[in-house]
Parts: sequence; C-alpha cells; structure tokens
Amino acid sequence: MSEELTFDFLTTPQIVFGKGRFQEIGELLDTYGKKVLVVCSESAFSQIQEQIEKITANRKISYEVFIIKGEPDIHQIDKGVEQGIKQKANVVLGVGGGSAVDAGKAIAGLITNGGLAKDYMEVIGKGSLITKPPLPYIAIPTTAGTGSEVTKNAVILSKEDGLKASIRSPLLIPKVALVDPELMIKVSPEVTAYCGLDALTQLIESYTSVKSQPITDSLAILGIRRITKSLIYVYENGHDVSAREDMAFAALLSGICLANAGLGVVHGFASPIGGLVGIPHGVVCGALLSFVVEENIKQMITEIPFNETLAKYATLGELLANIIFDDIREAADRVIEYTEQISRLLKIPKLSKYGLSEKYFEEIIEKAKKTSSMRYNPVKLSDEALYRILLKSM
Amino acid sequence: MSEELTFDFLTTPQIVFGKGRFQEIGELLDTYGKKVLVVCSESAFSQIQEQIEKITANRKISYEVFIIKGEPDIHQIDKGVEQGIKQKANVVLGVGGGSAVDAGKAIAGLITNGGLAKDYMEVIGKGSLITKPPLPYIAIPTTAGTGSEVTKNAVILSKEDGLKASIRSPLLIPKVALVDPELMIKVSPEVTAYCGLDALTQLIESYTSVKSQPITDSLAILGIRRITKSLIYVYENGHDVSAREDMAFAALLSGICLANAGLGVVHGFASPIGGLVGIPHGVVCGALLSFVVEENIKQMITEIPFNETLAKYATLGELLANIIFDDIREAADRVIEYTEQISRLLKIPKLSKYGLSEKYFEEIIEKAKKTSSMRYNPVKLSDEALYRILLKSM
Repeated sequence: MSEELTFDFLTTPQIVFGKGRFQEIGELLDTYGKKVLVVCSESAFSQIQEQIEKITANRKISYEVFIIKGEPDIHQIDKGVEQGIKQKANVVLGVGGGSAVDAGKAIAGLITNGGLAKDYMEVIGKGSLITKPPLPYIAIPTTAGTGSEVTKNAVILSKEDGLKASIRSPLLIPKVALVDPELMIKVSPEVTAYCGLDALTQLIESYTSVKSQPITDSLAILGIRRITKSLIYVYENGHDVSAREDMAFAALLSGICLANAGLGVVHGFASPIGGLVGIPHGVVCGALLSFVVEENIKQMITEIPFNETLAKYATLGELLANIIFDDIREAADRVIEYTEQISRLLKIPKLSKYGLSEKYFEEIIEKAKKTSSMRYNPVKLSDEALYRILLKSM
Repeated sequence: MSEELTFDFLTTPQIVFGKGRFQEIGELLDTYGKKVLVVCSESAFSQIQEQIEKITANRKISYEVFIIKGEPDIHQIDKGVEQGIKQKANVVLGVGGGSAVDAGKAIAGLITNGGLAKDYMEVIGKGSLITKPPLPYIAIPTTAGTGSEVTKNAVILSKEDGLKASIRSPLLIPKVALVDPELMIKVSPEVTAYCGLDALTQLIESYTSVKSQPITDSLAILGIRRITKSLIYVYENGHDVSAREDMAFAALLSGICLANAGLGVVHGFASPIGGLVGIPHGVVCGALLSFVVEENIKQMITEIPFNETLAKYATLGELLANIIFDDIREAADRVIEYTEQISRLLKIPKLSKYGLSEKYFEEIIEKAKKTSSMRYNPVKLSDEALYRILLKSM
C-alpha cells in the first residue's frame, strides 16, 4: 500500500493569533510569571511601551527591558542573561523581528542552563547542551518572516568567528507564540519584501524537503496560498491589516514547516553567505530561490523520469499560476517563473551589489555542503550546479 | 478583503508517530522522569509488558502499573492518584484506548494539583481548577479514535451522578503523543469501526464548526482523506499496518481539530446519551452522524441561500465521492449519503438496540442543549429537528 508514515512533529504548544491580541499579554503573564524580562528591538519597544506599562501596572507585574541592537551576537546574549539573572526574571518576552525573537529565545534558555552563549553554539561552540527547561518564553514577532516564534533554534552571530550559527534544542521552543498582525503595520516595504521572501522560501523548501511529511505539506500549501494572495499587495499597502494577517499567518506556518521538515539549498547557502558578506537574509532567499528551484527540477528530470518531488513542484506551479496543466514539467516550471517574477517585482537586488564575488564561491559551496539544510534538499546538486546558482544571483 | 483571521491553537508540543516507535519510550523517559506510573488497560499492558520491562531495566528506570478497568470513573482516578503519590512518580505514561489515555491524563494532573477527581469535574464538580503543571504525561493510544493524546480534557464517569463529564484544562495537554500503529493491530473489527466513526465524526464536526479555522480545516481534510482510504478496508484487514497507520493518523488529526475548533450536535448528544444508556461512544457517533448532517444542510438551505459552511459540506462531498459536482447542494448531499453508507457497511447498530427509547428524548435534548459542542454546530437546530435526529437513530 502507501509509503510508511513516520514523522516527528514539534511545535509551540500555544499559538494566539489575531489583530489586537497583544492586549492579552496580561493574562498570559498571569499564567507564566510576574517578573518579566522583555527582550526587544528599539523600534518594537517604542511600539509596545505604552500598552505594556498599562497592562503590567494593572496586574502588579514588574518588568525590565533589554534592547537588542541589530543582529544578536554572543556578547549581547550574555549581557541579557546577566540582566535576567540579576532581575530574578521568571518569564521572558521576546518582541521584534527574527533577531529579537531569537535573542529572547536564547536568553530564556541560558538563564536556566548557565554558561556563555558561545558554549552552546553549533560549529564554534563547546558542544554544551540545553538540558534544563528554559524560563517560560513568549515570542511576539513584529515582522512576518522567520517564523522563529515556533522553532527550536536561535541564530546568533559571532563577529570574532565571522559566522552565524544556531543554538538549538527542542526545549527552546517558545511556550507561547503571540502573533498580532497590527504590530506589523509599520514595517517598511523593503523589510516586508525581504521577510516575505524568507517565509516563501521556507515554505517551498520545507514542502519539497526529503523530510517533508503530510502535516507540514498541508500547512505549507496553506501558507503559500496566503503569500500569493498578499505578498505583492502588502508591499505597496503596508497599512492593510488583512494583508498583514495573511503574511503573519504564512510566516507562522513557514516556521512550523521548517522546524519539522527542514529546508534546502537556499538556506544551505544563506548561512555562509551571511557570514562572509553582510546581506539581509531575505535578500539571499529572494536572489537564490528561482535558480535553486530551476537546478532542482532540471536534475530531477534528468535523473528520474517520474519523481514525487517533481509532482510536488507541479502542484505548487498549478497553485501559483492558478491553472491546471496537462504536463507535469510545464507545471513545475511555473515555480521557477513565479519565484523569479516575485523577486523582480519586490526589487530584490542582485547579490553582487552587497559585495559578493566569484572569489568567495568555492568557500561558500564548501561551507554550505556541511549544513543540514543541504541534506534535506530533494536532490543532491553537483558543485557545478551550486556554482551556477551563485553565478546567476550576481 | 478577507474575513478576519483570529484563532487559538493549542496542541501537544511533541508528536512521535510511526510503526515500531514505541521502542523510543526509553529515550523519552530519560528526558521526563525515572519513576514512572504506567496507567493502562489490561489488554494494553499485556501487549507492552515485555518491551517496557526490557526498556526500563536497561535504563535503571522504575515503574508501577495502574490498571484501568472499563471506563474511568472518579474512584479509579482517585486510586491512581494515591498510588502515584505513594510511588513518588515523576512521569505518567498512559497506554490504551481513549479511556486509559484519559485516565492517565487526569491522574497526572491530580497528582500535582491535589484533591479528588470529582472536585475538578465540569457540571458535577466543585469548580476546582488545574492550576499547577501536571506531572509530564506521555500518551500512547492503542486505538484510533478519540485523539485524546492531543486534547486538553479527560472524560470521567461518575456512576453516582449517572453522568460522564470532563476535567478540562490547557495544562492537561500531554507533553508527548507517541502514536505507534503497530500497537493497534489486535483491535477487533467492531472496536475498529466504532473508533473510526468517532474520528470521522470529530473531523467532520470540527471542519464545519463555527469555531473552525484554517489550520484545523486543512488538517481535517487530511484526516478525512485517510479515513475514506482506509476505514472500510481496516475493518476487514485489521492486521494491515499501513491501513492502521492511516487510521491512527486520522484519529490524531481529529484530536488536534476538536481541541481547537470544537465539535457539533453529534457530540452534544453523545454525552447525555452515554450517561443515560450504556452505548459505546463510536456507536452513538455512527448512528447519529448522517442525520445531523442532513438536518444541518436542510436548515442552511432554508435559512440562507449561500452559506460558507454549506460550501464546506460541498467540498467534503466532492472529496468523499471523488467527483466534481456542478451543484453545491448535490455535492453537500453526498456527505449525508457517505456517512449513512459507512455506518451501514460497518454494521453500526440502531440506538434502540441498547435500550434508548423515546421516553428519554426530551431529557437528552435538554441536556444536550447545554453542552459546548451544541454551540459550535454550524446552525442552531430546533427542538423538533433534534427530536427527528434521535427518532431516526432508533
């Protein structure tokens, strides 16, 4: 009969989603703790300050704020942990884009597990493991991109090592994801586009990953539908809450999918490119996505005349084009067209604009091949194919 | 633009699904605790005894067994709690059908919260609330029906009050759902049918519930597909692991859906009928489902010419019949036909066979109208319509 059904599914146990629901933070804090460490970006704090003061005062909850500047690096995390311990925080709130949400996640984990951030980091760390439950962590994204509110890892930068890497543990999954699209209204068109392309890439890569499974497949389709409906629109109409809702929902789903199905070559490349050249993650996604899909499809057609993942690309192609095709290859090709087109419409720059050049390619390819994302790509691409992808992104 | 997207999603944070994965229980216990209270049915224990002894011995884990006989009643729960406290258990394993999984859930909650089971029960209790995190609870279903492994409530019987009611709290959601279809191989055709109809009813009712939302909708469709593929087949081929997989997956999804979207009139009726007359829950579902769908559709057509839930029934009808219809009503009607047919093929008895008679109808209707499931039904059915449904089930 059918293929054996076996999977693991790990997610944030409580998701609170909807316009204006940030107001419910008081009730959540009643459940989880009265001494709150708020980890957030400066802009996120200015957005929530008034509300959080009112809510905490009414409930006799005390809070301190730890501001994350730019990308979270190991020293910032260590400082946040120190502050939380001094404060005797018993709950952590992370509010902001992926950076702030990741930072809060790491801080909540390290407060109870002890040691320095670097000890726990993949690749450059000491191999320390998160073994104790973190402080209860409530994640509140203010951009629709990473889906970090439902994932088990925090991406941290070590400037000294010229590298971004994850602290990762199933225990790091937030206790609550509170997603309020109203908090996303003020995000600039540029950042909206970058985050949206990150979410789209996560959805497409997890849907076609070798680790994909029925639950994540069906959620990925749900997410991609919302993106096709709203990404271009929200880029020009950022104030539209309903379009923000769609994007926030898609990003949330992309997080659930990537946490359980893994990603692919785009994300395999993203980590070394991000480490070597400072490029926003969403730009890397937008610049590479169509070329990775193209190489994947090309190789599938050459290798195996009928391939399940090719059929999945075809399903996606039909969804994106909103047409039924007679030919599976024609349908699959629509994914290439759509992803190329959306990156163009959202004005995603070529990677050469950020200083990427051919001299880095070999190093990037070597590093990328060691990432887990690369292993989940539906086919194993040759070094030549990987080189071609980078070249096209220039 | 679109309707506002606002929802809560609450689920078991870790799902481990697949054939033979019961073997991984040792690793899970390493994470959660070394003194295990195993709450299970006699037949489930005979199935796992050898494996659990080997696994625990190898890891220096101690365990005690508490056997649940028949439906869990308040006194059994209290005894289980007493045993767990004496044993100083730090983790609870619930293994068996819905009864055993519910019992383990309640016991894990009461060990840390104190008091008697009845205090916490809806309707007849003192209104005590679960406020402390229960002992970590690992739920291992051996039937594919209730989906209790991912829900927040435990249905408990009080013989003295002639009533089944729930102990309910978001904190009661199990820490882990370990679903191993191999443990379901020996379930009789009869019980397989009853459990399957429970799962099917839960999927259809949550999909058409007024509280339904995109995530549960997409999971409900996924579950219904598996049921149409395998329920009739597994009834006659219970040894087929792949069909058991489909049913276990569908039941799991039905639990996720009901916990987040609620149910409908069938489940509104199930509780008072189960309290007054001893009828297996799945039989009540199978006997009522098609008639409830029929009344719902009839009323929708009368009330509102175009109704979103009618469109959902139509989607279901197309899925169940595997045909595209021109007419929405014709498509929706297929749900009535299919649910009537599957109950007939699975030889679900009429409820009069269990002693249900018209003299109970008024009382059942009155009690049913007070249940939460009734509120989530897509339309408000009149007393006359409710009466007709019961009459047809005789």
